[in-house]
Amino acid sequence: MGGLITLTTDFGLDDAYVAAMKGVILDINPQATIVDVCHAIQPQNIAQAAFIISTSSQYFPRDTIHVVVVDPGVGTGRRAVLLVTPSAFFVAPDNGVLSYIIEEAALGAGGEAPPIGEGETELAWGLQAFALTNPRFWCHPISNTFHGRDIFAPVAAHLSLGIPAHDFGDPIHSLLTFPYPHPQLKEHGLLIGRVIHIDHFGNLITNFARQDLPKGRLFIGVAGHVIEGVTESYAEADALLAIIGGSGNLEVALKNGSAARLIGAKIGSEVTITRL
Amino acid sequence: MGGLITLTTDFGLDDAYVAAMKGVILDINPQATIVDVCHAIQPQNIAQAAFIISTSSQYFPRDTIHVVVVDPGVGTGRRAVLLVTPSAFFVAPDNGVLSYIIEEAALGAGGEAPPIGEGETELAWGLQAFALTNPRFWCHPISNTFHGRDIFAPVAAHLSLGIPAHDFGDPIHSLLTFPYPHPQLKEHGLLIGRVIHIDHFGNLITNFARQDLPKGRLFIGVAGHVIEGVTESYAEADALLAIIGGSGNLEVALKNGSAARLIGAKIGSEVTITRL
Amino acid sequence: MGGLITLTTDFGLDDAYVAAMKGVILDINPQATIVDVCHAIQPQNIAQAAFIISTSSQYFPRDTIHVVVVDPGVGTGRRAVLLVTPSAFFVAPDNGVLSYIIEEAALGAGGEAPPIGEGETELAWGLQAFALTNPRFWCHPISNTFHGRDIFAPVAAHLSLGIPAHDFGDPIHSLLTFPYPHPQLKEHGLLIGRVIHIDHFGNLITNFARQDLPKGRLFIGVAGHVIEGVTESYAEADALLAIIGGSGNLEVALKNGSAARLIGAKIGSEVTITRL
Repeated sequence: MGGLITLTTDFGLDDAYVAAMKGVILDINPQATIVDVCHAIQPQNIAQAAFIISTSSQYFPRDTIHVVVVDPGVGTGRRAVLLVTPSAFFVAPDNGVLSYIIEEAALGAGGEAPPIGEGETELAWGLQAFALTNPRFWCHPISNTFHGRDIFAPVAAHLSLGIPAHDFGDPIHSLLTFPYPHPQLKEHGLLIGRVIHIDHFGNLITNFARQDLPKGRLFIGVAGHVIEGVTESYAEADALLAIIGGSGNLEVALKNGSAARLIGAKIGSEVTITRL
Repeated sequence: MGGLITLTTDFGLDDAYVAAMKGVILDINPQATIVDVCHAIQPQNIAQAAFIISTSSQYFPRDTIHVVVVDPGVGTGRRAVLLVTPSAFFVAPDNGVLSYIIEEAALGAGGEAPPIGEGETELAWGLQAFALTNPRFWCHPISNTFHGRDIFAPVAAHLSLGIPAHDFGDPIHSLLTFPYPHPQLKEHGLLIGRVIHIDHFGNLITNFARQDLPKGRLFIGVAGHVIEGVTESYAEADALLAIIGGSGNLEVALKNGSAARLIGAKIGSEVTITRL
Repeated sequence: MGGLITLTTDFGLDDAYVAAMKGVILDINPQATIVDVCHAIQPQNIAQAAFIISTSSQYFPRDTIHVVVVDPGVGTGRRAVLLVTPSAFFVAPDNGVLSYIIEEAALGAGGEAPPIGEGETELAWGLQAFALTNPRFWCHPISNTFHGRDIFAPVAAHLSLGIPAHDFGDPIHSLLTFPYPHPQLKEHGLLIGRVIHIDHFGNLITNFARQDLPKGRLFIGVAGHVIEGVTESYAEADALLAIIGGSGNLEVALKNGSAARLIGAKIGSEVTITRL
């Protein structure tokens, strides 16, 4: 059995941590295909990892196994979990890193906007989760600092071999989550959102999804700058521009330059939308 | 069918852009082998990408599919193309990023120095190109900002499955190119070239190919420094040295150090060769 | 035949050097699986590469082929070698980069602490080595600057196809090594070690292995700071902490922060352990 496994971590590429995970996986399933999603998550930045995996996992084949290890609680009592959605598997610590995946899976299952809040969230219909409590699928001895290598990687590898999800541990019915930062509607139609990611190009990815944008002539405000209208391509404007990016979210960008550097915006910077 | 696909982009590794391309490819052809050539091209630096792919694609097996996405014109009318050479396939925007590949392929076909200039260049005998106009092989919906994921990756994946090149769109007979910066011969045998790449070690890669070097006692000048002679190994000299590097081009290097840092040269810095 | 090949180099990821090695490997063995261990070794830092490969190779399947190219002597008379241990193959320049592998393999073979010193070291029982002198398995023409691509990669690829080790060149009975920096026991039970690696999180990895630690109440001193006791998880302490890390070595870490930045320690900084 082949099996496609992706890795998302805050381990960086300066050490051999990611390589150790790959070695463990290939030792268990030599036929596994391993793809790096991202290892440049800021250390311990769970929200960033939640964003990265939720905007990329959808492009992978059905039943891909996504391993997400941003795990400041490693070695404590925090649970390690396997989440099964209708389209994929996620192996991760139970610390909220799967929050946006859970929300999207619930929406995809035809539900209403699901009640994803801060804390223990009951899983929507169509989702299953298991605590990774069965040591048979771990890589012994277990360190207290590197469950990516000792628990998450070997579980993913065994899963890719066809071991049923319920063999990995006890079923659980809720996971820790934090809410997706949806934009807010204020009086007079003012929409308040924020920058939730700044990419390699310096594009400011906001939390406005395409469907959040009102019709009409829009003015997008960020860090003291105002942009009129949403353009169709990066090359179309010569100054700062707003565009629906590849993730389906509104981005503030600069043709052949870095919007982030130009206007000094940061992750968390407020973004406003008003309509004339 | 297996199929080897390489990726060269300016996307960096801090986001999940490269991963999304890989997910799309593996969704279409789970047997594809994907190799990263380089994702550290400076944003929008088409010439750098042209250099990187032209100095590495030759080491890959025959019929490898090279995807090159440095694409500041994404979402505009710029064409997306598939170039078929006698040895490989290239999937890229039509913005000059394949210029050096086109020149080399023409040379390899036994032609004379081909007339690669600035602008639309007619393809030499033995080369074929197609505009990627057939939406059947795209990944819908098409974004206006990320054709790497929505057009180039799925086209490469389908190509790796054996879809014939002409199925992807209309044949075209010319591509946009810019000239390779060959060194120039001045009076008294003075050769003027320049630094075209600075590598991770700080080695200054020049545009002098081995065959550009005259016989005799050479003096290589760069950034106010003069080096006498071309040495045979990095370890042979204790100061600044000149050597034929792995790409077959003349490099200026420093044993166990960074020549770039030592002498303050940059991409574009002039390099002179005189002969005694 | 499949064949798993790992790559460890100081080439970085900004150039196409690593890609050229992969192209060469896949041209010879299209079925090879290639895993990057680390390409962020500091240029020419042989000791760092020795540490990285010795702490990661053990997680890979039996008979994995590890290619390690940190090679300041490329193009000189330094030997290129293939080391065969009971569990894996190593392809590297003979410059000490395999020192810790040789020591561990000798220990693993049931020997005593082997006499790994500075200079030519005779190989312990159970280890075999060959000088890579057979040009049949090289990639011609051979450059003087890039044996990673021209010798080490093609040798690894041919080895992965099942070519016997002795076909690659003459057997040799000693390799260049340097000693592992084991901690030292001073008077009054004072142990003196040092920081041998600083990871992506700013954790200070010391040369104290778990078995080097005395029983009792320990005080760990580094860069003017003293830590009492060894904790069980990163999250357990709010200040600087000491913990046995994933490599089995004592680490000095900071919960949700960088110990290296906080206390200004560097690779080579002294670490002391005293016992009350």
